[in-house]
Amino acid sequence: MASSLGVLFRVATWGESHGGGVGVVVDGCPPRLPISLEGIQFELDRRRPGQSSLVTQRKESDHVEILSGVQDGLALGTPIAMLVRNEDARSRDYDEMREKFRPSHADFAYDEKYGIRAWSGGGRASARETIGRVAAGAIAKQVLRCFGVEVLAWVDQIQHLQASVNSDTVSLAQIEATPVRCPDPAMAEQMIAHIEAIRKAGNSVGGVVSCVARGVPAGWGEPVFDKLEADLGKAVLSLPACKGFEVGSGFAGTLLTGLEHNDAYRADEQGGVFTPTNRSGGIQGGISNGMPILLRAAFKPTATVMHEQDTVTTKHENTTLQGRGRHDACVLPRAVPMVEAMVALVLADHALRQAALRSVNVDGIQC
Amino acid sequence: MASSLGVLFRVATWGESHGGGVGVVVDGCPPRLPISLEGIQFELDRRRPGQSSLVTQRKESDHVEILSGVQDGLALGTPIAMLVRNEDARSRDYDEMREKFRPSHADFAYDEKYGIRAWSGGGRASARETIGRVAAGAIAKQVLRCFGVEVLAWVDQIQHLQASVNSDTVSLAQIEATPVRCPDPAMAEQMIAHIEAIRKAGNSVGGVVSCVARGVPAGWGEPVFDKLEADLGKAVLSLPACKGFEVGSGFAGTLLTGLEHNDAYRADEQGGVFTPTNRSGGIQGGISNGMPILLRAAFKPTATVMHEQDTVTTKHENTTLQGRGRHDACVLPRAVPMVEAMVALVLADHALRQAALRSVNVDGIQC
Amino acid sequence: MASSLGVLFRVATWGESHGGGVGVVVDGCPPRLPISLEGIQFELDRRRPGQSSLVTQRKESDHVEILSGVQDGLALGTPIAMLVRNEDARSRDYDEMREKFRPSHADFAYDEKYGIRAWSGGGRASARETIGRVAAGAIAKQVLRCFGVEVLAWVDQIQHLQASVNSDTVSLAQIEATPVRCPDPAMAEQMIAHIEAIRKAGNSVGGVVSCVARGVPAGWGEPVFDKLEADLGKAVLSLPACKGFEVGSGFAGTLLTGLEHNDAYRADEQGGVFTPTNRSGGIQGGISNGMPILLRAAFKPTATVMHEQDTVTTKHENTTLQGRGRHDACVLPRAVPMVEAMVALVLADHALRQAALRSVNVDGIQC
Amino acid sequence: MASSLGVLFRVATWGESHGGGVGVVVDGCPPRLPISLEGIQFELDRRRPGQSSLVTQRKESDHVEILSGVQDGLALGTPIAMLVRNEDARSRDYDEMREKFRPSHADFAYDEKYGIRAWSGGGRASARETIGRVAAGAIAKQVLRCFGVEVLAWVDQIQHLQASVNSDTVSLAQIEATPVRCPDPAMAEQMIAHIEAIRKAGNSVGGVVSCVARGVPAGWGEPVFDKLEADLGKAVLSLPACKGFEVGSGFAGTLLTGLEHNDAYRADEQGGVFTPTNRSGGIQGGISNGMPILLRAAFKPTATVMHEQDTVTTKHENTTLQGRGRHDACVLPRAVPMVEAMVALVLADHALRQAALRSVNVDGIQC
Repeated sequence: MASSLGVLFRVATWGESHGGGVGVVVDGCPPRLPISLEGIQFELDRRRPGQSSLVTQRKESDHVEILSGVQDGLALGTPIAMLVRNEDARSRDYDEMREKFRPSHADFAYDEKYGIRAWSGGGRASARETIGRVAAGAIAKQVLRCFGVEVLAWVDQIQHLQASVNSDTVSLAQIEATPVRCPDPAMAEQMIAHIEAIRKAGNSVGGVVSCVARGVPAGWGEPVFDKLEADLGKAVLSLPACKGFEVGSGFAGTLLTGLEHNDAYRADEQGGVFTPTNRSGGIQGGISNGMPILLRAAFKPTATVMHEQDTVTTKHENTTLQGRGRHDACVLPRAVPMVEAMVALVLADHALRQAALRSVNVDGIQC
Repeated sequence: MASSLGVLFRVATWGESHGGGVGVVVDGCPPRLPISLEGIQFELDRRRPGQSSLVTQRKESDHVEILSGVQDGLALGTPIAMLVRNEDARSRDYDEMREKFRPSHADFAYDEKYGIRAWSGGGRASARETIGRVAAGAIAKQVLRCFGVEVLAWVDQIQHLQASVNSDTVSLAQIEATPVRCPDPAMAEQMIAHIEAIRKAGNSVGGVVSCVARGVPAGWGEPVFDKLEADLGKAVLSLPACKGFEVGSGFAGTLLTGLEHNDAYRADEQGGVFTPTNRSGGIQGGISNGMPILLRAAFKPTATVMHEQDTVTTKHENTTLQGRGRHDACVLPRAVPMVEAMVALVLADHALRQAALRSVNVDGIQC
Repeated sequence: MASSLGVLFRVATWGESHGGGVGVVVDGCPPRLPISLEGIQFELDRRRPGQSSLVTQRKESDHVEILSGVQDGLALGTPIAMLVRNEDARSRDYDEMREKFRPSHADFAYDEKYGIRAWSGGGRASARETIGRVAAGAIAKQVLRCFGVEVLAWVDQIQHLQASVNSDTVSLAQIEATPVRCPDPAMAEQMIAHIEAIRKAGNSVGGVVSCVARGVPAGWGEPVFDKLEADLGKAVLSLPACKGFEVGSGFAGTLLTGLEHNDAYRADEQGGVFTPTNRSGGIQGGISNGMPILLRAAFKPTATVMHEQDTVTTKHENTTLQGRGRHDACVLPRAVPMVEAMVALVLADHALRQAALRSVNVDGIQC
Repeated sequence: MASSLGVLFRVATWGESHGGGVGVVVDGCPPRLPISLEGIQFELDRRRPGQSSLVTQRKESDHVEILSGVQDGLALGTPIAMLVRNEDARSRDYDEMREKFRPSHADFAYDEKYGIRAWSGGGRASARETIGRVAAGAIAKQVLRCFGVEVLAWVDQIQHLQASVNSDTVSLAQIEATPVRCPDPAMAEQMIAHIEAIRKAGNSVGGVVSCVARGVPAGWGEPVFDKLEADLGKAVLSLPACKGFEVGSGFAGTLLTGLEHNDAYRADEQGGVFTPTNRSGGIQGGISNGMPILLRAAFKPTATVMHEQDTVTTKHENTTLQGRGRHDACVLPRAVPMVEAMVALVLADHALRQAALRSVNVDGIQC
């Protein structure tokens, strides 16, 4: 199913930007897991437009309704359906888009694929589609709490501005301390100023979101196509505007030799094993090794800019289009909860898959 | 299924490095597609150990046998099973690995995951697993020929050595001209010398493989989780040693502003649409836009080095391990056909998915 | 995903009987297919409680809202989400069920599976779950119209009362002519009288629904696990209270010899092929052969009866339970649109799968 | 994937009757499960042609080779690939089938589906395809032993000859006591005589296989589309020649009223729950209830008969075809291990799915 993800902990999203609403179905949630509406709303508020002057001013309260699968605050084990109604859909802002393709947006590709397009508000290519992901991700985070796993993402780079963050100690409070969600306070200030300036210039910028998953035990993941880094990569690359993904040393690791790059194993005093370095990013051969999982995601600058640009009409004639409407000059602050959600969804799924694999007591069985 | 990939054009691999053999089942191949044993063997020979002094000297002829699904050179539409026997498995080279985990290899993670491990030859984490992928990829390439699509990959960077290649014109002959599979002749020479020197030093290096898919029509891909870049990313990141993936402008694109980054649309004289720039890498909103698909994959330096390294025993005691055995000082030349295969598998699957979506004539149907 | 069905035309339902509502997501609908809210509501009204004195008197208008995937009456090709709110949920009728398991209901099994149970209204085991199936089935029927396929089901047997119906000519109007949905008018009258008598006695009865799919071309289905009869069987057996399924000659066919049972092929005057008999039920080796597809489904008598029965408490102590509440004395009339929906869902999926398989032009391709 | 089955314990078969061989890949086997080549061969020998005068005399030793996934008799947790070579393929017996469709065989449907057909030996529609199922089923049975579950099937009816068997006590030894695999000795004798007579007359017969799964705990299965009876039905109906499936009371249950049909719950002395009757067949609402699972499968008479029959040529002209070759006059004795295998595959998959669902300790987790 094109709009679903996961094997055991499985999500399916639906909804267009200007239709009746957007939503998600979460299937495979462990029964009796505590489900908190407030916890889900907290994550949605981190993703919400209008939360600060840095992001789009579209007014959406994004109140979520749980339609099924929960009774008295506990998961029933059946599908959890969640719905967020669309409110501030100004279709008239999009009238021109009916006839013209916005450059570097998905309009043209959708038209070619489907022969029809929800031209208003970007349809399903709108960032509103990620509401379902973030709501589902909040439940995935709750599953991960059962395993002692915490997932945190932050803005690591805005255009040329690079933060310095310790992934072993970074906290949610530090990330949420500024609207740009960069836990390096000095750099956060510069980033905010830069995004404001870019916004005033009608331009846009991109950057890099970093993410750590702490507490993942060794053994999650699969050895071949569903390698943990492959599933994480797919999930993160499926976010709007994401153009790159790396785990551990990533592209920078290609500049090292094997002797420099390898992570030695060492025994700790409790009989456990660790690697003093973590260039593997917590994954080896597709399977977690017990070290923190580290990954980075590149987001291109927002395609909508407040300038006139060359484009074509839906009849394939050259024209120009003047950007207007309410848009993010930089998606990175809102991408932080999205990256966390996608990473949590993948980890929750693999947590259950590994639990299944080892749940059978094969000892004492005779052939 | 942990070891399978794809929705309509679907592959499943099996096999350990030192077991009875390795293989693949390809399900969903269009019936009556010409299947050439020579074409499959050609790709396997590009992946084969011992093909040049640059790569591991393990002696494997890697002759493939087609066990099913083909009759008189034509696909039957039923599963195509292919088998390659293991020949030169020197398990004694691995005796020490029975008791010690090789640093930055998958040994430790497998042990934690399964509680058992094919310690000899790396088991399923061996590069031999990719034989099935490359064999299946040869069939996927044949499917893509029906659509006029060509997939080519090449070595773009070895450690600090960066090639200069025109993705619009690069050819298979240029890629195959040198054993390092870098179509920039001057840089290829430097790369070969560098790999030889690194090999003699018992060390290893990584680098970047670039790939282009030319001729992909607009409309392939899906808008949400199965975005084309997401599925390509997953497939490529599932290759051994791959730590990073980017499409189009990738990480470098985060340094541009939106005005600099956007790809303007222009009409061509045949009523078509193109973008003079291609920072999108041929994909917008998860769907191909008719431009060449461009991607890059980062491979870490080979984990096996001919030096003594710190590690732990299977009983979690500190020890050291002296690297030995036959290994690639650099996997990049052999990774080229692997990247092509993974890209071809994903594109063939999405080609069929799009064909299905638009195969139904909905015009003239009444509600 | 436990609550989804299909490969290309894919549905996922959600919702409990007494929660916020029930719904369905339909993914993979061909873009630009006309979608009629009235057409969907028509099918839901055939399934609705309170439609006649024969069925449960729970008052639910079952008005469906389309939340996404449709624009100006045409499918966008993206997921179509549909929602029906629950209205007349009398949880107090179920208070006793909180502590006691209803015999031959799913209460006990749910409790054992999940360790938690939506005790009110039967939760997800309620027939309300089938609303999503029927709504999705209405869209599947629309897809099938593109292929000239019509799916019709009817009540063929109520307990010992067996109708006589010609599957080649039976029409929707004949089926809908009576509230029992048996197109044999004389037998329909007897069935209605029998159900009324059974209902007055506080008892219940089951029976058999027959179904024909006319116009299915040869070639739909798959040869091994996803045989057409296997997927149809699974879909129909997944309906509440269904205990048996047969295709073509079914169980009765086991009484014939091969010479008696075989369907001879004959050429027709247009160069086509048909079988004068149709004991195969339109499917051979898992693949449709162009003849009408014929199947039958056995539904057990409704488990809820208005009598005191032996059962146990949730603490596993013996007790008795007096049946009460509003229930169907016979589910068969309402099962008719459900069977049609399930058959339509499977056929629409296989229609798209076969379209994909043969959509690639393999001729002229060289190895 | 058309040729695969299962979610966590997953099998994919491949192979044509007269190609290089047939095989199966089993993915998701719990690691360290003891795997016995002899145990697998035992099941294959029960399925093998030539095992008695009752079945086809094609000479195949059906020796299985395990190619991967097993080390020193223990499962590695990676895919287990198994191969059986074809030996006694007399393609010349099939020369006429190249031009003519055998009545009630899959030849015509395959031709229409694929536009190409492995005309020799029935290709993938041959009963040889079930070798992979039976081999995989042997491993599934081993998984089920970890849960204390035993699966037994037997011939319950041959044409009009109906056996009397106690499903609570029937044993493998009783089933294997006669070549017809009917554990009712008197009836077995009659059945053997009847099949011999039918074979001599060049005719064929069908019948019913019954199956019991004893020891299945309550809680296996899913509540909606993947109901346990639905998945069992699909698996069994996917066997060649199977035309009907019923669970528990099945079609006969439609003749009872609800008061007669309901299974009362009773507490046993160990705090457990049972039902003195078992018309539910061990499944309620798609989920096992701890009672033995009971099902029946109808197999049509073999299509190949040694008589001249009406048919058409591949050019759609009327002709006749004289049956010849080596075939089963009755498939039922060989269908017994096939039914057991399919039931075991489904139960092993659901065992792992339920283990996953309940493997997470959700207690003590805070929202």
